[in-house]
Amino acid sequence: MSIERHGTTRRYSDVVAHGDTVYLVEVPPSPDADIGGQTRDMLASVERLLIQAGSDKSRLLLATIYLRDMADYAGMNAVWDAWVPEGTAPARACIEARLADPEIRVEIAVIAARLPTR
Amino acid sequence: MSIERHGTTRRYSDVVAHGDTVYLVEVPPSPDADIGGQTRDMLASVERLLIQAGSDKSRLLLATIYLRDMADYAGMNAVWDAWVPEGTAPARACIEARLADPEIRVEIAVIAARLPTR
Amino acid sequence: MSIERHGTTRRYSDVVAHGDTVYLVEVPPSPDADIGGQTRDMLASVERLLIQAGSDKSRLLLATIYLRDMADYAGMNAVWDAWVPEGTAPARACIEARLADPEIRVEIAVIAARLPTR
Repeated sequence: MSIERHGTTRRYSDVVAHGDTVYLVEVPPSPDADIGGQTRDMLASVERLLIQAGSDKSRLLLATIYLRDMADYAGMNAVWDAWVPEGTAPARACIEARLADPEIRVEIAVIAARLPTR
Repeated sequence: MSIERHGTTRRYSDVVAHGDTVYLVEVPPSPDADIGGQTRDMLASVERLLIQAGSDKSRLLLATIYLRDMADYAGMNAVWDAWVPEGTAPARACIEARLADPEIRVEIAVIAARLPTR
Repeated sequence: MSIERHGTTRRYSDVVAHGDTVYLVEVPPSPDADIGGQTRDMLASVERLLIQAGSDKSRLLLATIYLRDMADYAGMNAVWDAWVPEGTAPARACIEARLADPEIRVEIAVIAARLPTR
């Protein structure tokens, strides 16, 4: 069972797939946006990475969301709730944490299932 | 390989199973209890969710525990150590983090193995 | 599909393997070292645990790094970047968080793939 990686640098890969499971971590590509914009852009990027690795946003298993400031909880959730296809929400944790880049307000780690036809 | 979900809302599922693996995140149902009571009630809920998804508390693989205040570390551990069946403890991380609900003192993310007979 | 555990105490296991997947959490064995030394010693220990469980450091899938102080980000990364075999970096999150032991500057949770020949 081989490991498939995309966007691999010396430090990290954008997305890694192994067997039936996909792993990814993403931050917003647009650090100057507000929490709504950062979340929207981050999730659009998550969606692309999932498809690249043979999954999609209806197949999330576990999401861990890191917020720089818990005051952004409602703003992040407004975008999240609309983004997740109804009836497919994953197990989800959301905590406040200082992130590496001070402009980044949100970061997400995702474990997802690959499409069965792959 | 299909995805099984329980307790699914627009935002999250209580527990998600895929193949041989179960994913869940839980908080205490009783935010007015002390750390011992919150941990006890949370772990009782984890136990129910695991069974619902075809696993049990002797099949934990990885647990991530978030504490609002690291001063609760000993109080959480006293309950945890008694709850985990001897010889079956998972890999475990425990960090301090601000959580969404300020009354909640502890939150847990769990990856577990499904029972092989399933 | 049985669960394989190593270094199991009442509270945690050093490493747990299930099917094709390995889970571990590690802290530095040497809390009096600086961030470079703590990261180096921690990753050497991760390497041993991975091999013990039938994986190796070229088969990481997802790493979550907790830093006590984000000011250690560059010092941790210098060791990390040299440690990960080129072209094999996992998905990776890194956040700041208070840890249980105040002398510990870094902690890591790893999900890795077992060697296919196992």
